[in-house]
Amino acid sequence: MKSESPADNDGLPAILLCQWCMRAAVLTISDKGSIGQRQDTSGPAVAEVLKTIGAVIEKYEIVPDEVESIAGKLIEYADILGLDLVITTGGTGVAPRDLTPEATRMVIDRDVPGMAEPMRMESFKKTPHAVISRAIAGIRKQTLIINLPGSPKGATENLQFILKAIPHAVEKIKGDPSECAAL
Amino acid sequence: MKSESPADNDGLPAILLCQWCMRAAVLTISDKGSIGQRQDTSGPAVAEVLKTIGAVIEKYEIVPDEVESIAGKLIEYADILGLDLVITTGGTGVAPRDLTPEATRMVIDRDVPGMAEPMRMESFKKTPHAVISRAIAGIRKQTLIINLPGSPKGATENLQFILKAIPHAVEKIKGDPSECAAL
Amino acid sequence: MKSESPADNDGLPAILLCQWCMRAAVLTISDKGSIGQRQDTSGPAVAEVLKTIGAVIEKYEIVPDEVESIAGKLIEYADILGLDLVITTGGTGVAPRDLTPEATRMVIDRDVPGMAEPMRMESFKKTPHAVISRAIAGIRKQTLIINLPGSPKGATENLQFILKAIPHAVEKIKGDPSECAAL
Repeated sequence: MKSESPADNDGLPAILLCQWCMRAAVLTISDKGSIGQRQDTSGPAVAEVLKTIGAVIEKYEIVPDEVESIAGKLIEYADILGLDLVITTGGTGVAPRDLTPEATRMVIDRDVPGMAEPMRMESFKKTPHAVISRAIAGIRKQTLIINLPGSPKGATENLQFILKAIPHAVEKIKGDPSECAAL
Repeated sequence: MKSESPADNDGLPAILLCQWCMRAAVLTISDKGSIGQRQDTSGPAVAEVLKTIGAVIEKYEIVPDEVESIAGKLIEYADILGLDLVITTGGTGVAPRDLTPEATRMVIDRDVPGMAEPMRMESFKKTPHAVISRAIAGIRKQTLIINLPGSPKGATENLQFILKAIPHAVEKIKGDPSECAAL
Repeated sequence: MKSESPADNDGLPAILLCQWCMRAAVLTISDKGSIGQRQDTSGPAVAEVLKTIGAVIEKYEIVPDEVESIAGKLIEYADILGLDLVITTGGTGVAPRDLTPEATRMVIDRDVPGMAEPMRMESFKKTPHAVISRAIAGIRKQTLIINLPGSPKGATENLQFILKAIPHAVEKIKGDPSECAAL
């Protein structure tokens, strides 16, 4: 039986696929999604994009728009599972319950402002409403955490803007000692 | 008698104008302006621009470049008056008494970096000196607070860069539950 | 005997050169450089660029990638030497020991986000990897501190993007009371 969960990776356990790969989680932040009142299409869409850069999606979960729930999952993914990459989708706007950036900031050791800026900059060229995305990116231990907006279109489009930089960033975060001539 | 204060809205009380509008304040930050040694032209210029998006200017005041004065006004506008939008002008540079961003950061619950970034980005295309604007934007309770530079030209030009996004942002901050397909 | 140290300014003491100039330091952050295992080419390259805007390089030192070492030097340059400008090179990436932004944030009184944003924005046009630069800029007392990446190419290229704005910024930080019409 083949599950259609985006965390599935065609049924193979991550450990077999992964000599050299990115171990990733996708965390959807949605009140309605977390109680089954809305189908989450953003999480699976993000997972598909991540697979194009060789990421193995080990976890895909949905939590409500609550700081503790979000922060708890981020800590679990970084500290217990030791994942390389965590992508969140949802909760980055300005509505009262949009608290993903606050939860993320609470758990990161170091921020990576350069990942959030070009997402907004490129989105801004398409729509003035891009300014309300408060998404951030940062590092907890050896895990890169990146916030994306909540809509499937917004999430995947934003991810594409910085996608090429992710594998190199993940290597560096793990301590790859090679020189980085361009920077 | 018709006052020429930008807070006047042609003499009509805000409550009559405002079934569905943005209730706004303009706060000019200027040592000289606050003691009447310089006429404030930035505040009124900003107010004129805000009226083009339907804002009703309920308050227009001038305070000196002091953290306590600025923060006190922002708290009053957000917590007591419950305004939708507060625009500050002045005190965003790097001079010793430019402390508006610090005062703003002190009172906001959540920051909105995406509003400050495009203002600098677009200004930077015109002048390299745009880099010294330290303006921020953020949300206190249900009030959107945006810092603008102090010159009339700088303030209105920067405001224009993000003007279209403000009404939607204000709706979202108040908890408008409609979906936001683009983001 | 003429030293080739970039801090040398052709052998003249800074006080003679400097009626009206920027008193600057270049701080290279490099584990290997600090113990003589790698020759630092970035620091001298940055110093050359700074001289084109009239900076007198009073200090040029190399410290390891340690928060205390970096922060200690920044405090010395700002509080004891009272320099106008400190440029750091190195330690701005995402590797485990890249801690220059954290050390800088620890000592600055006010941040200047507008200096870091265009460096990344312009670099991003050349390479997607620019997103991992976590460089910041800020002010401690009357000293402007700017982080640059560690490679000679990355450091000088980034510096060039904002170079024209530095003299004006330094004047303003010192309290130049002249009006700034553009902003």
